[in-house]
Amino acid sequence: MSLPRQLDAVSLVDQVKSGTLRVQDIAESLIERIDARDADVRAWAWFDRQLLRDRAELLDEVPIKGPLHGVPIGIKDVISTYDMPTAHNTPRYQHSRTGIDAACVDTLRAAGALIAGKTVTTEFAATLRGGLTRNPLALGHTPGGSSSGSAAAVADWQATLGLGTQTGGSTIRPASFCGVFGWKPTWSSISREGLKMSSTTLDTLGLYARSARDLMLLADVFAIERPERPAPVTLEGVRIALCHTPHWSKALPATQQAMADATALLRAAGAVVTELVLPDTFETIARSHFVIARREGRASFLNEYRTTPKLHDDFKATVENRAGLTVAETRAAYRHADQCRAIFDDLASAYDIVLAPSATGEAPAGQDQTGDASFNSLWTLLQVPVVNVPGLVGAGGLPVGLSLVGRRYDDRKVIALAELAGALFAQNAAIDARQMA
Amino acid sequence: MSLPRQLDAVSLVDQVKSGTLRVQDIAESLIERIDARDADVRAWAWFDRQLLRDRAELLDEVPIKGPLHGVPIGIKDVISTYDMPTAHNTPRYQHSRTGIDAACVDTLRAAGALIAGKTVTTEFAATLRGGLTRNPLALGHTPGGSSSGSAAAVADWQATLGLGTQTGGSTIRPASFCGVFGWKPTWSSISREGLKMSSTTLDTLGLYARSARDLMLLADVFAIERPERPAPVTLEGVRIALCHTPHWSKALPATQQAMADATALLRAAGAVVTELVLPDTFETIARSHFVIARREGRASFLNEYRTTPKLHDDFKATVENRAGLTVAETRAAYRHADQCRAIFDDLASAYDIVLAPSATGEAPAGQDQTGDASFNSLWTLLQVPVVNVPGLVGAGGLPVGLSLVGRRYDDRKVIALAELAGALFAQNAAIDARQMA
Repeated sequence: MSLPRQLDAVSLVDQVKSGTLRVQDIAESLIERIDARDADVRAWAWFDRQLLRDRAELLDEVPIKGPLHGVPIGIKDVISTYDMPTAHNTPRYQHSRTGIDAACVDTLRAAGALIAGKTVTTEFAATLRGGLTRNPLALGHTPGGSSSGSAAAVADWQATLGLGTQTGGSTIRPASFCGVFGWKPTWSSISREGLKMSSTTLDTLGLYARSARDLMLLADVFAIERPERPAPVTLEGVRIALCHTPHWSKALPATQQAMADATALLRAAGAVVTELVLPDTFETIARSHFVIARREGRASFLNEYRTTPKLHDDFKATVENRAGLTVAETRAAYRHADQCRAIFDDLASAYDIVLAPSATGEAPAGQDQTGDASFNSLWTLLQVPVVNVPGLVGAGGLPVGLSLVGRRYDDRKVIALAELAGALFAQNAAIDARQMA
Repeated sequence: MSLPRQLDAVSLVDQVKSGTLRVQDIAESLIERIDARDADVRAWAWFDRQLLRDRAELLDEVPIKGPLHGVPIGIKDVISTYDMPTAHNTPRYQHSRTGIDAACVDTLRAAGALIAGKTVTTEFAATLRGGLTRNPLALGHTPGGSSSGSAAAVADWQATLGLGTQTGGSTIRPASFCGVFGWKPTWSSISREGLKMSSTTLDTLGLYARSARDLMLLADVFAIERPERPAPVTLEGVRIALCHTPHWSKALPATQQAMADATALLRAAGAVVTELVLPDTFETIARSHFVIARREGRASFLNEYRTTPKLHDDFKATVENRAGLTVAETRAAYRHADQCRAIFDDLASAYDIVLAPSATGEAPAGQDQTGDASFNSLWTLLQVPVVNVPGLVGAGGLPVGLSLVGRRYDDRKVIALAELAGALFAQNAAIDARQMA
């Protein structure tokens, strides 16, 4: 029988509603796990047992508030919470309390969620320099970033759901490295108010769960529109575009194998998998992403630059435009992004879904760097929905996720297909494990 | 000799730096004006004389902090200020204090600015329902909105500079109605962190001043890039595209006359003014603006909807999607906007600047509605820089501004041309006034 901390949100809420479980039981189950694991995994930037117990007790005293009643959620520490600090892993805000929830946290609390604590982020969620968190599946490896703590906490049963962000690959890559579902929604479909801003064009809230049905529950909470036609309930006949992307040369054997295995599994389940080669113009999409992220980063970090002499040089370099970006180049990058969005939308309309890598391979060793965002950034710039599907495992025994990518506002379809693909990959991993035993 | 409150920011800072003026003198000059006018104009949502005096005294005790030392700035009350409430003109946040500055306010303070108070906004800066502010030039008329208080305060010498926002026409239209310079920068060129979010695609910080050189000073403060080639110093040979836009049928006689008069004045000054007719696809740009604003508004106001039973029905209607927007329609609106941006960028590249209406006419009578944003919304969706140039006056004696519109990231060029055009329009108004006397 599963412990409360091992259940997904859908199960937890069922049990709380039926009276089988108290929210305080969930809190204690979590605290027990965090006590045992925090010294090793270090997912939490801020966590207070007593606050968690108090909030859990309150939730047990009131009628069911909403569809997340009692579900513990870790919040990346660049997202404002009224009752906890928001420190951004940076000196200036070490004890900063805005006293107001980010819009997404406000929405989660209104749905009855138990806000568990603040999870580790890289500095301002804007750098590849690692935070303190370790990959719970292999402590000598990075969990990815910048949403390091949220991905690790959810993977390690230290939270049921997690919030992250993505500007490059900061939600999807950690999901891949830690073996959990991660959802980067259609840009602008969920409010980013109260999140540290890095790039207006790119910044997106990210959501972590251990099941796709939990992502669907979150889609309900965030009022994501229902599609005109119902999502597929089987993989039979589903048209999948296999997209290696212009960055395929960066794929390590683990990712190459995962893409090949996934293709075989999906075809065996009746899906029609054909290759999608993006047109030549996509070869420079990484450059456009870089230019836009830098120019907007300059606006985002200007006030930090002007007020904080000891600001890390990464941010000074951005504000000072050491990359030497010109107006012409900046304008061209926005033009290019506008054009690529229209092109991708056309191409994707011929398929149900696009399948692409989530990361270059398994989680690399070490904590200094959080990995390579090449397979994530282009989707972020295109502003389309992405879900990392866990289940496949590399030769090193670590997860290799794959991304399902949809057209803008097709989030529910992507999640539904992630559920089907996830079940397929998980069965396959189980078979592999038995074969290896 | 001018009173401190009548000077522009450039003059004020000169005098403070040379020791001719103390910041406390500026504060007293402002307080005197606010005491005399606030009951009529009602520009301020929150204002505290003692706080202003204390801050002014502090600024007199320290060395010059930056290029805005001692300049009083009114902050629209949807923009966070650490030492003043941010109420959004809505019940839930009536006494809300985030305890942290918006990034733009942080930057202004670091430059030495004197944050004067919070100016009136329409509710959440997201509705045409008027706030309490009256047009200082004609108290029976609207000052426009949603940045009502900032435009009015700057026009009425109750602040030297003002911050507003624009999602439809909320910076430019009030500037036009109140007869001040208003700048809607290139989208994403100035951080919007700490502003109430309404629409990610559209929201832009807005800036008010009584001189174009003050806008240039603000461009320096906000590190707006310098163009590759120097901006024009004379109107001689400047290529101006006269753009009536697809909404020209909404132009009242005052706006029609202003466009004609401006064309004549600019040609007399040596500019080459030719008509630019936007292609047919721009005829539905207002619809795309509406769809995007509504879909993103749904995300922005979801948490208010879930937490605040008495939320105004305007916002409930948005969150509930009473407009019945479909996924297909939403996706098409984003496609359309992407395409129009590329088309406009091409067209505008053949000119130095585009000249267009700022409003349908003079400020309408009454406070219930803040006016028609038809002439503003398209530029907001295109994400290009706009400056309202005051100076021309309608038959009713009220200002009729005109918009100078540039390509993305050409803000400094737009401001420079606004300075030249502004001088021209002001001379003309002076001549008219003498002729009428």
